[in-house]
Amino acid sequence: MQSVSRLSINQYTVRNWTIPQLLEGCAAAQIPFVSLWRDKIAEAGLDETLKLLGDTGIKVSSVCRGGFFPAATLDQQSRNLEENCRAIDEAAAVGAEVLVLVCGGILNHDLDRTRDMVAEGIASLVPYAEQAGVKLGIEPLHPMFAADRSVIVSLSQANAIAQLVGSANLGIVIDVYHVWWDPAVYSEIARAAGRIFGFHVNDWIVPLPDILNGRGMMGDGVIEIPRLRNAVTAAGYLGPIEVEIFNDELWRLPGRELLRLVKDRFLTYV
Amino acid sequence: MQSVSRLSINQYTVRNWTIPQLLEGCAAAQIPFVSLWRDKIAEAGLDETLKLLGDTGIKVSSVCRGGFFPAATLDQQSRNLEENCRAIDEAAAVGAEVLVLVCGGILNHDLDRTRDMVAEGIASLVPYAEQAGVKLGIEPLHPMFAADRSVIVSLSQANAIAQLVGSANLGIVIDVYHVWWDPAVYSEIARAAGRIFGFHVNDWIVPLPDILNGRGMMGDGVIEIPRLRNAVTAAGYLGPIEVEIFNDELWRLPGRELLRLVKDRFLTYV
Repeated sequence: MQSVSRLSINQYTVRNWTIPQLLEGCAAAQIPFVSLWRDKIAEAGLDETLKLLGDTGIKVSSVCRGGFFPAATLDQQSRNLEENCRAIDEAAAVGAEVLVLVCGGILNHDLDRTRDMVAEGIASLVPYAEQAGVKLGIEPLHPMFAADRSVIVSLSQANAIAQLVGSANLGIVIDVYHVWWDPAVYSEIARAAGRIFGFHVNDWIVPLPDILNGRGMMGDGVIEIPRLRNAVTAAGYLGPIEVEIFNDELWRLPGRELLRLVKDRFLTYV
Repeated sequence: MQSVSRLSINQYTVRNWTIPQLLEGCAAAQIPFVSLWRDKIAEAGLDETLKLLGDTGIKVSSVCRGGFFPAATLDQQSRNLEENCRAIDEAAAVGAEVLVLVCGGILNHDLDRTRDMVAEGIASLVPYAEQAGVKLGIEPLHPMFAADRSVIVSLSQANAIAQLVGSANLGIVIDVYHVWWDPAVYSEIARAAGRIFGFHVNDWIVPLPDILNGRGMMGDGVIEIPRLRNAVTAAGYLGPIEVEIFNDELWRLPGRELLRLVKDRFLTYV
């Protein structure tokens, strides 16, 4: 059985809330962690965010997000690296355990070269993360996002990059929505032992209402969430479990109602 | 450079056409192959279909489709097997080179068991296919269809089943839309040498308009089609190349105009 002691609310699960609303809502519901998005931090202001985190005692499990490494020009490549360094600074400032990396989509119709660019980009970012004491978590996305969001589409690829680069500050983030279908998912979770920096839950609804904003609430879909959670636990991950659901229909609910639903489903289905 | 000598039109690319319209249209455009769907054969009648095939001299590259093996009861399992035998009969009747297998989605939230059911179902169907002289082609679908259409989501899985069962009548069908994202796609195509029974082309548009009916026309998306075609050729496949595009927007075009577009794009982008 799950308790809420590991529950983290990804801010975009309650998209319509600002950071003050999210932190007050989570404090009232005794939820110990949140995952913050950079656009929402910018909106609320970093100082105000830090003050509210201090007041509520809520911890930041992750900041979303860094990544998007592929670049058509060297100039664009340095701007990307610079932007990722700012994301690391921000993650350090809010005391986040990890900065989530969404690696970027295919460039110039060349999948192999784009994948190399991602590995190179991560390798060049790691020293800055080490210095800042921030962990970087490579999040493989579902293959349906390979074209426009992440050419890293499997745990196997993420593990390979993490092994190649070989830093204690580089690991992977596992989101059940992105990896549940993979025949190698359990062997790759085991392979990731010691390098798992995050675990995200939600569900896969049939039929899928929308690729991007049609993720399901836990219990509404086909994903074997407890089995995946057990595998992640067996691989040594005992940190926060983030609920990350982008869903147009759920976003219509009042924030507090949605938060109550998340908490109930987390306790029953995770 | 491609010629039309290997071009096959999957019937659902020109969905609004009946079999008579399709065969007349392809004959007029000097397209040598079609892929037929069972619902359209039923609509036209098998005798009429055979007569028109004879009159036009057009060959059938494949029949769509068999499969959907997972079953909640033994009774349902035998009905599925029976239905697959009728599909084999029909493929034999129209002289199709291959019956395409779409394996079926997840049953009872148990992905491993469902995958076993597919392998068992295929193994039990093979003897009937051997007797009928029909080839069965396992078509892995994109992982976004794992829940509702096919738990077989990679060439690796399809190759493993084909190797395990080990019949000259069992192989795989490669559709670029379903496999282009896979980091193992080229090694798995090479592994499939001698067992490739079909090659389907289309494209992946960004952003994807729809999961099911948002496939792109060749040249409109990001898939490295010539590279994949070369890999399939290097693995020894020299048979028909099917254009299979389900696309709401293209279906609004008059059939002849759509066929002209397919032919042009095939010559330029495949």
